[in-house]
Amino acid sequence: MMIVMQANASEDDVQAVLQAVQRHGFQPHVSRGEERVVIGVVGEARRAEPDAFLRLPGVARVVPLSRPYKLASREFHPQDRQVRVGSVKIGGGASVVFIAGPCSVESRSQLLETAHAVKEAGAHMLRGGAFKPRTSPYSFQGLGERGLELLAEAREATGLPVVTEVMSPELVPLVARYADMLQIGARNMQNYALLRAAGASGKPILLKRGMSAKLDELLLAAEYILSTGNENVVLCERGIRTFETATRNTTDINAVPALKERTSLPVIVDPSHSTGHWAYVAPVARAAVAAGADGLIVEVHPRPEEALSDGAQSLKPERFARLVEEARAIAAVLSR
Amino acid sequence: MMIVMQANASEDDVQAVLQAVQRHGFQPHVSRGEERVVIGVVGEARRAEPDAFLRLPGVARVVPLSRPYKLASREFHPQDRQVRVGSVKIGGGASVVFIAGPCSVESRSQLLETAHAVKEAGAHMLRGGAFKPRTSPYSFQGLGERGLELLAEAREATGLPVVTEVMSPELVPLVARYADMLQIGARNMQNYALLRAAGASGKPILLKRGMSAKLDELLLAAEYILSTGNENVVLCERGIRTFETATRNTTDINAVPALKERTSLPVIVDPSHSTGHWAYVAPVARAAVAAGADGLIVEVHPRPEEALSDGAQSLKPERFARLVEEARAIAAVLSR
Amino acid sequence: MMIVMQANASEDDVQAVLQAVQRHGFQPHVSRGEERVVIGVVGEARRAEPDAFLRLPGVARVVPLSRPYKLASREFHPQDRQVRVGSVKIGGGASVVFIAGPCSVESRSQLLETAHAVKEAGAHMLRGGAFKPRTSPYSFQGLGERGLELLAEAREATGLPVVTEVMSPELVPLVARYADMLQIGARNMQNYALLRAAGASGKPILLKRGMSAKLDELLLAAEYILSTGNENVVLCERGIRTFETATRNTTDINAVPALKERTSLPVIVDPSHSTGHWAYVAPVARAAVAAGADGLIVEVHPRPEEALSDGAQSLKPERFARLVEEARAIAAVLSR
Amino acid sequence: MMIVMQANASEDDVQAVLQAVQRHGFQPHVSRGEERVVIGVVGEARRAEPDAFLRLPGVARVVPLSRPYKLASREFHPQDRQVRVGSVKIGGGASVVFIAGPCSVESRSQLLETAHAVKEAGAHMLRGGAFKPRTSPYSFQGLGERGLELLAEAREATGLPVVTEVMSPELVPLVARYADMLQIGARNMQNYALLRAAGASGKPILLKRGMSAKLDELLLAAEYILSTGNENVVLCERGIRTFETATRNTTDINAVPALKERTSLPVIVDPSHSTGHWAYVAPVARAAVAAGADGLIVEVHPRPEEALSDGAQSLKPERFARLVEEARAIAAVLSR
Repeated sequence: MMIVMQANASEDDVQAVLQAVQRHGFQPHVSRGEERVVIGVVGEARRAEPDAFLRLPGVARVVPLSRPYKLASREFHPQDRQVRVGSVKIGGGASVVFIAGPCSVESRSQLLETAHAVKEAGAHMLRGGAFKPRTSPYSFQGLGERGLELLAEAREATGLPVVTEVMSPELVPLVARYADMLQIGARNMQNYALLRAAGASGKPILLKRGMSAKLDELLLAAEYILSTGNENVVLCERGIRTFETATRNTTDINAVPALKERTSLPVIVDPSHSTGHWAYVAPVARAAVAAGADGLIVEVHPRPEEALSDGAQSLKPERFARLVEEARAIAAVLSR
Repeated sequence: MMIVMQANASEDDVQAVLQAVQRHGFQPHVSRGEERVVIGVVGEARRAEPDAFLRLPGVARVVPLSRPYKLASREFHPQDRQVRVGSVKIGGGASVVFIAGPCSVESRSQLLETAHAVKEAGAHMLRGGAFKPRTSPYSFQGLGERGLELLAEAREATGLPVVTEVMSPELVPLVARYADMLQIGARNMQNYALLRAAGASGKPILLKRGMSAKLDELLLAAEYILSTGNENVVLCERGIRTFETATRNTTDINAVPALKERTSLPVIVDPSHSTGHWAYVAPVARAAVAAGADGLIVEVHPRPEEALSDGAQSLKPERFARLVEEARAIAAVLSR
Repeated sequence: MMIVMQANASEDDVQAVLQAVQRHGFQPHVSRGEERVVIGVVGEARRAEPDAFLRLPGVARVVPLSRPYKLASREFHPQDRQVRVGSVKIGGGASVVFIAGPCSVESRSQLLETAHAVKEAGAHMLRGGAFKPRTSPYSFQGLGERGLELLAEAREATGLPVVTEVMSPELVPLVARYADMLQIGARNMQNYALLRAAGASGKPILLKRGMSAKLDELLLAAEYILSTGNENVVLCERGIRTFETATRNTTDINAVPALKERTSLPVIVDPSHSTGHWAYVAPVARAAVAAGADGLIVEVHPRPEEALSDGAQSLKPERFARLVEEARAIAAVLSR
Repeated sequence: MMIVMQANASEDDVQAVLQAVQRHGFQPHVSRGEERVVIGVVGEARRAEPDAFLRLPGVARVVPLSRPYKLASREFHPQDRQVRVGSVKIGGGASVVFIAGPCSVESRSQLLETAHAVKEAGAHMLRGGAFKPRTSPYSFQGLGERGLELLAEAREATGLPVVTEVMSPELVPLVARYADMLQIGARNMQNYALLRAAGASGKPILLKRGMSAKLDELLLAAEYILSTGNENVVLCERGIRTFETATRNTTDINAVPALKERTSLPVIVDPSHSTGHWAYVAPVARAAVAAGADGLIVEVHPRPEEALSDGAQSLKPERFARLVEEARAIAAVLSR
């Protein structure tokens, strides 16, 4: 980091900052300009707290020079990383992956019908919620363990690996017993106990961006998982919260190239939550592939008008099948 | 809710919606205008999913008529509610409450020095973090149980009840053993397992607004706690995330009257996190009291430049003492 | 609109609202539910002010039923509209249009070199700023009329029609004398005097979305132009302001399908301003075409490191040429 | 500014940057750290474009050291400035100023009734819109010059100086003939032709913050006015656009102390637009005074339910009178 002194800082101020830097175990490096002094702080920059220096007399600003994450950074790991879920490969030059299924597991017949339909349409993995984080305590909260059993049955029937959300550290062992990949939902992106427990399970993790998380914060959440030794993290852009109310969220399509520049972890996009409206899902899904995403996770329901959750944003299987074709043709343009 | 049909919806569309409404167990109420049909849905509106009707042919929009929470609503509980933490009363006409202390418990001497100082300055409760949710895994994560022990010791020494954050459901019993009030942090506002566990502890809860939570979502989070039978919930505005970068967050001062209109639960403000800059803490704290807040929670550190976290936004004890005086004088103007 | 009465509104309240509706020249239509009364307001809804009824006793909410614009709406004009600029066709099933050129016209040689380069790369129109809206009064403000002359010369030399920004009503005649299409910039989207003057010029208009404009507000700005009798309006998504700081703005890719649903006017995307970073321009430009945009407007500079403005987000001509190829291949997937 | 080189930048990269800095007429100042080189740029920093250096090979980031405005800065003008409108003093230690009146001038009787009422309640100045910027072309657009005449008549009748909005450069002479202070509305904060024309009129200017303007951008807009030689600029916080929909805008109360730190220009708050709801106006107005605002501008209408615009957020005169009393008592606490 650099500590920028005020134009009128005294020599005593400068000396006090130098001592503080050393007291924190870092090496200061002074640069005296015509107008002001700038002090570089050398050492393990990720452990330094800019706050520690901001309150010293004469300090104008503290500017970090390095990104705050390491294990998640492309600098640390330049090659594109590939995450495997069973036989499915995500990222690292693999072809675009399609993950599809209902928002919630509602019943055996609903799930099996959907699983077969999305497989036939070209999906590589099955999604479905057993434990559902719902804004209202009065909304359907999911089937719980029964939902996990049905997901496992659907995997047996179709061969599709399963990803499902885990909402609490103590549920990690249960969900990990059934699922092939654990999803950390947007609301829990900064639930650090959960990130650590999920990481420690050794399962591949699908980490969704929080709805007001900056990209650096998403990467720091990934860093929590990576620091458990689990390298199998897939990042998911799922829409951010903005002032626009015409859509449920705003898909941050810029996040695809911006994340790819910062990290070598795979990046997928969820066009269902990021738009909230089925008619916008296919255009935005195509856009994600065109922007370079490694995959898509899409809500599909055979009869969206009967869905217990997210019916408004679910595709019917036929529409999903057409989307897979379009997305593949776009991926081909980009030689994927 | 009202289901607004498209101008060109057919009679068959209307009949299909009526049947769907009845299938969900509600009573439809048709109103045929000149241009379009509007269908009112009567019954336990909070259980109905607007999504369920949005996908039916001919439906233009679904408009909720009631607010989605009940136990938290002023309609349900018109009288201002008072939450007691030991002998301290928050809300319900009580005088403005001051909660103060360091961001993190760092050491015995730091905590005791601060606790005595804030008590002398007029604080009613002590705050301090033992388990700290930090954006980076490389930042100081708190002293854990040792921090709780020190908080309990500071309570013994000063008589101030203690509020501290709990970050995970399995830690609720431990934290509840030491603390007088449990804080749910902004990052965990939609951590439903934690809301339920904290509620079930029976302890008073300080619920912080998530940094991109709408007021209705904050009240639905409170509803999760209230639905455990625990009525002792205090809401806390702590700044929302906006495009403005001159401050750490944007204090949503409108939230004070807007929450008071929607709920009778007490509302306090955290000017430290909502500004992120010590020099703005006192002006914004005064503003909160002037807007009708029931209390303030303020970060105070005897030597902010040595703080392990949030030094930039911590007040020194002298400045806090002056703030208490100013805030009391403003409260007096409002006859509190 | 619908006026939703409070559950406890009296019959007197209802009668007062009915009279107010009639006093404003509209026809009320009462619907008495079990819990509350809802009053439909029939007539030229776009002229009614919801505010007028909100303050009446017993009124809970006022819900608009129609969109507030008419001439801009797809309902009013269902067929995709095509805007012609010289021989270039935008929208209405035409193939994807590429508009390219420097942020600012800086010199004769810079402009001519760029114009020839983008033409060769496949651009259909030339962009370039002569009058520049700059956040700081100390930044380069453009060459003014001299810039317009150079743009006209570049058109002669390349045959590419020219679009350039007009910042003030009194400059409309001057700019219209040189340009083939007038651009209304994001900062001026709600400069109503300018919208009217530009519309009245009869020239095709490129209307950029304001950086915090909702889609309905963009369409109301278009309505100002359309209401002058000028139907040649092209809408441009150019990024909105959000909390994310990794990019200059957030490209609202959802806006492409969401606008297409609401209006039949052509929609193009500006990936240069919406990302602010040259390395993200091509991925986001491809995404825009994949989402269904009718065209792209891209900043190109032969030597971005010497640009007087927006060098960070300008593509070099070679990179732009590759982008045109990729975008065309994606358009082909969508049969455009 | 500082140009931060990449860790792996070559010596050739560094030399190329040094030459570029000199070519732009600035003095480079090299600082070689252990990990990377940082180049300080000394000179008239406000004229340097960071963009110019970002695209050079080996450059990681460009960090501005100075604020981009000068005339508006407190550094340049440390003493609080006072703006006079007739005999009314705003800022510079003067007591809190109350500006009040209807959103729109609707009729002679409405305006005169309101003007007398707000004067009696304690207002120092009269506000009222003659030219109205309306989101929809179908909304009431104001009485135009007839409105200005009525404002002048109300001034004669009450002695209150008048502030009213000017929306277009060519209207500046007309509006300046009638008004004592010109208002630049939020939508026109970056209408640079208007800022210059209003500044050149010599009249005091009330500059409203754009709804997505950062504080630095507001101050740069003020800089446009100040650079015409007109020093009589009052800044106005009027709410910013965020994700929260419970209120029309979000009052950025942090802006009061944050602006006071950056500038010595007076700062007032508009609680009517920043909340959009009459019931929140008084609490937020009190908060503004408690935070240190130099004044308030409040919409008052004798019969809000009949207002042609903004009825939902207008106070009745009695409520305004009570607000003036409360605000004065709070100002007294702060010794104003």
